Amino acid sequence: MRPYVIVNVAMSADGKISTRQRRQVRISGAQDFTRVDRLKAKSDAVMVGIGTVLADDPSLTIKSEECRKYRKEHGQDEHPVRIVVDSSARISPDASVLNKGEGKRVIAVSRRADVTKVSALKKKSTVIVNGDDDVDLTSLMGELYSMGVHRIMVEGGGTLIAGLFEAGLVNEIFTFIGNIIIGGRDAPTCTDGEGFIKDSSFPRLTLQEARRIDDGMLLHWIVENP
Amino acid sequence: MRPYVIVNVAMSADGKISTRQRRQVRISGAQDFTRVDRLKAKSDAVMVGIGTVLADDPSLTIKSEECRKYRKEHGQDEHPVRIVVDSSARISPDASVLNKGEGKRVIAVSRRADVTKVSALKKKSTVIVNGDDDVDLTSLMGELYSMGVHRIMVEGGGTLIAGLFEAGLVNEIFTFIGNIIIGGRDAPTCTDGEGFIKDSSFPRLTLQEARRIDDGMLLHWIVENP
Repeated sequence: MRPYVIVNVAMSADGKISTRQRRQVRISGAQDFTRVDRLKAKSDAVMVGIGTVLADDPSLTIKSEECRKYRKEHGQDEHPVRIVVDSSARISPDASVLNKGEGKRVIAVSRRADVTKVSALKKKSTVIVNGDDDVDLTSLMGELYSMGVHRIMVEGGGTLIAGLFEAGLVNEIFTFIGNIIIGGRDAPTCTDGEGFIKDSSFPRLTLQEARRIDDGMLLHWIVENP
Repeated sequence: MRPYVIVNVAMSADGKISTRQRRQVRISGAQDFTRVDRLKAKSDAVMVGIGTVLADDPSLTIKSEECRKYRKEHGQDEHPVRIVVDSSARISPDASVLNKGEGKRVIAVSRRADVTKVSALKKKSTVIVNGDDDVDLTSLMGELYSMGVHRIMVEGGGTLIAGLFEAGLVNEIFTFIGNIIIGGRDAPTCTDGEGFIKDSSFPRLTLQEARRIDDGMLLHWIVENP
């Protein structure tokens, strides 16, 4: 058994999630912000890759008081479990995700992660060790499921999302498409990694819903046969 | 005066226009194919970059007999003027765009292009020489306008489109978003080049129309203050 995985990303009209300098860009607006906060609140956990933590230092907390209250009334922690996939334990002990807001944290590292660093992380989070060089995402998902994490929202970045697609672990993807052009062959996209080569290996999607939000468009895709 | 420029691209749900091997991928379907053919037929010229010619060898002709007939009845050539931006004159004299179908061709080269190659190209096309190292897109557009090319459809690739956005020459962009994930940090996107860094330099768009076509979504954006 594995968790149901929903990816959520915002990209420019030309498919970029930030500039080539990896500076965070405001792509969506207030309406989409509320949607994302709610999607997060309905999840057992929020997952990001270490690249996103190092670039943006997100707290991954629920921003709306109403959503936090709703969760508490339903016997859940105020914030979903916050999961960082960080093969070589590069996260700083001062990272916002480890310090802001109450609730559980999981850091997924591989066996190559430094033992001293891992010990330090254990003071602030549950550490899952998995895979030789890179975290084995499939078995990580199995472990998370057995910990009670049955619904995960993935917020990026492009390397983690690519890994999840390659392992066939994504069930849905929301893409908000904003009204700017960022450009740049080296600017990150929502699915980086190696990429697929053959038509037969492309993950295929079904467009579930498309609607205008803020000054852009929200597309909600369901992954066929993940 | 310069031509009105409409960019048309098809990308995967994760913003890629082909695989990292630059192999052409079928992203849209029959409905979108007809739309693109009509858009092309309503243009005075179709423009692509040399990368697209080398990767895909497109003929850039109008496929529908009805559209070709319509053009002829309105005193136009069967096919729009076909323009290739090719700074160092790398196009092969055997390229489909130079040989398939009747009508005018323009090859835009820079002053660094080999003279022998340029002479050979002159047998099959009008050659415009413009810019020292790279074609100066702004003055190319001025020359094209004075040749009677008032409406251009740009079909790719990512480098040319980036150059046009950087020079503020794009008026509209159609993006068809298909129901596949291609992935890959090195897979081309519709706007490659250097990319923009500052928020104030991002080209800003207005979403004119969004509609479902084939198994994806067509977004039609108007560029603000190009």
